[in-house]
Amino acid sequence: MRIFAIKGDIIFSETPQTLTIRPNAYAVCEDGLCAGVFDALPNRYAAIPVHDCTGRLVIPGLTDLHAHAPQYAFRALGMDMELLDWLDRQAFPQEARYADQDYARAAYTLFADDLRRSATTRAVLFGTLHVPATLTLMALLEQTGLVTRVGKVNMDRNGTDDLCEPSAAQSLRDTRRWLDACSDFTRCRPILTPRFLPSCTDELMRGLCALQRETGLPVQSHLSENQGEIAWVKELCPDAQGYGDAYDRFGLFGGDGCPTVMAHCVWSDEAERALMRERGVFIAHCPQSNTNLSSGAAPARVLLNEGQRIGLGSDVAGGAHLSILRAMADAIQVSKLHWRLNDPDAKPLTLPEAFWMATRGGGAFFGRVGAFEPGYEFDAVVLDDAALPCPFPLTPAERLARIVYLAEDRAVVHKYAAGTQLF
Amino acid sequence: MRIFAIKGDIIFSETPQTLTIRPNAYAVCEDGLCAGVFDALPNRYAAIPVHDCTGRLVIPGLTDLHAHAPQYAFRALGMDMELLDWLDRQAFPQEARYADQDYARAAYTLFADDLRRSATTRAVLFGTLHVPATLTLMALLEQTGLVTRVGKVNMDRNGTDDLCEPSAAQSLRDTRRWLDACSDFTRCRPILTPRFLPSCTDELMRGLCALQRETGLPVQSHLSENQGEIAWVKELCPDAQGYGDAYDRFGLFGGDGCPTVMAHCVWSDEAERALMRERGVFIAHCPQSNTNLSSGAAPARVLLNEGQRIGLGSDVAGGAHLSILRAMADAIQVSKLHWRLNDPDAKPLTLPEAFWMATRGGGAFFGRVGAFEPGYEFDAVVLDDAALPCPFPLTPAERLARIVYLAEDRAVVHKYAAGTQLF
Repeated sequence: MRIFAIKGDIIFSETPQTLTIRPNAYAVCEDGLCAGVFDALPNRYAAIPVHDCTGRLVIPGLTDLHAHAPQYAFRALGMDMELLDWLDRQAFPQEARYADQDYARAAYTLFADDLRRSATTRAVLFGTLHVPATLTLMALLEQTGLVTRVGKVNMDRNGTDDLCEPSAAQSLRDTRRWLDACSDFTRCRPILTPRFLPSCTDELMRGLCALQRETGLPVQSHLSENQGEIAWVKELCPDAQGYGDAYDRFGLFGGDGCPTVMAHCVWSDEAERALMRERGVFIAHCPQSNTNLSSGAAPARVLLNEGQRIGLGSDVAGGAHLSILRAMADAIQVSKLHWRLNDPDAKPLTLPEAFWMATRGGGAFFGRVGAFEPGYEFDAVVLDDAALPCPFPLTPAERLARIVYLAEDRAVVHKYAAGTQLF
Repeated sequence: MRIFAIKGDIIFSETPQTLTIRPNAYAVCEDGLCAGVFDALPNRYAAIPVHDCTGRLVIPGLTDLHAHAPQYAFRALGMDMELLDWLDRQAFPQEARYADQDYARAAYTLFADDLRRSATTRAVLFGTLHVPATLTLMALLEQTGLVTRVGKVNMDRNGTDDLCEPSAAQSLRDTRRWLDACSDFTRCRPILTPRFLPSCTDELMRGLCALQRETGLPVQSHLSENQGEIAWVKELCPDAQGYGDAYDRFGLFGGDGCPTVMAHCVWSDEAERALMRERGVFIAHCPQSNTNLSSGAAPARVLLNEGQRIGLGSDVAGGAHLSILRAMADAIQVSKLHWRLNDPDAKPLTLPEAFWMATRGGGAFFGRVGAFEPGYEFDAVVLDDAALPCPFPLTPAERLARIVYLAEDRAVVHKYAAGTQLF
């Protein structure tokens, strides 16, 4: 049994509305799980090793609920298009490069290194449709010590000549081959990944549902991001009552035994939101991507108040930044414009709410993750803000606000995921 | 006469719509002015020193048309309020600290250092109402080599007990004392700075107008940022036809011999915009501040298409970031939400347009500034993006896009302002 403590100014969420702040306290990790936070170490822990981070902030690791690993290479490029054009002219041609294993290794090495150094400890990621490249990504992530879910993408229609699977059968065969090959990984595990409805034939969706029922694997996809996309889904699935219902008809929209993340939900109407709540679907709110692709502003306040399961996603490369610190600030900022321009009833998000989404909200997809509460998996990030001097004394909450708004991933000096120190 | 060249991948704006890109070229500086950009050095320049920045980007220095130097210390704090509450509860109490010269020196040293290291070469800045602190700020800026305009703030009403001048007469006396004391500075020069209409009595405004006519100094203030503020101005100036007209009635709204910057212009109506155009008022567009303070989205597309004089401002600390690279990305992102949510006719800004605003648009306030054209003052920033590796080759325009979207002020490795190398 491995026990240790981190000492520092500990901040985490117990509710969405407030930050729990324990200055100069000890967060104890026992066999990978949090044993609690203590102002002084109880006698039973008197002899355990203490990682002394006095004067630094200690927060739970952040969860990125939605990002495309192969798109990291071209982040910040081609940002003058909307979703469907951007997919055809930017994302798909770039993803086609991952047929080349040398390219994949070079690009994914950069991605894995940067994710490792960030404030993120958990991530739910898209790969590409290529099995070898996706296995390369998973091997690199496994080495980082991060806890991740990665999906080989399924897409057997509406791709490009260079990026489309030839048939549902081939897509499903490749998926099984991929699942067999990645079964030894322990920290980087698979997730079924139909790209989005327009990319998957009915046959493929049915096959993925069968595979999901057989394996119990979680599922990720995209939902109601852009109005052109929604109109297209309506054409493709005329019988469905909406985009979410279209997934649901294929059995790939949450519910018991089918944990599901849907990215975006910018335009989900009341019926779709009700179905998400009923099915326990996780919403990956990706404010920067919604902005860059002119998709709109997801109604984060409404989703939060409805009690939806909601976390934050970088959506690299719809979002240019891998930082979930940045995603917190983006979420607050977009919620302010949404309030002022769109919906006077939807009060802006607060920093504690954004922090809650980035920690517990998204972390819940991985189980008991995202807080320093007894029994939670021990993910911790130690932040040193010495590079941000201030002429007056700051409270821990103010120091956190600066790191969040300034997206200072450089402040990350130590990181633990599921009880293991990464650096 | 001092002549030198910088060699590198040179990017600047000739029009708002396109970037002029001159790979592996020479920008020549002759006595502080640009002599042109050359693919090979002409014979007459054969012997001049060349600063070899091959493989790096060379762009014009950026202009920050609006920031509050004393607010840099508390950037990213108190971001859950709208403008008028934020002024009373955050900005004013914080500015009151600058009565203490030791505090002012400590805080302004941090500000000046960070501004010096950023991609900004020109800035138009608010100080506080305190004469000694404002002189300290100016002395520190003078040492940086940046070219700046700094204003001692005038505010004789609606402040707080700790931050309000006792009378118009005292405010004007202090202003003259400040102008006398800063007359030796050459790079950091004064600008008249009525905080905003609600902060200045009619008597003070009339006195400032007289002082402006006497000195020919430029003027900066705030305009039509927030709807509560606009309603307040209407109460205070019932005879004016609008907020801009209220300044104009006091002779402090541009026109011949009275160069003026107005920050924000989020809610300026057609009449106000027509007056700005007529008077040649410079608009400081501050997209991040507009977002943080829930002010709204300034109609940058409309302002640009109308031919307004418009540049970018960080508006620290309404904006949390001093980076004008970040302000470019913010401007594009806010314009996308404005387009999607507010005005389907207002097409989003492009990167070349944002770059134009950050260089020539704002630079024009300082004269012929913001481009590598013959006769322009020589402001240059050398950017090294080696810390942003990419698995495929990038064009200079793509490299610029990454530095802008990722707000990589860390990429700044050399900087020149008005022909002088700062580092």
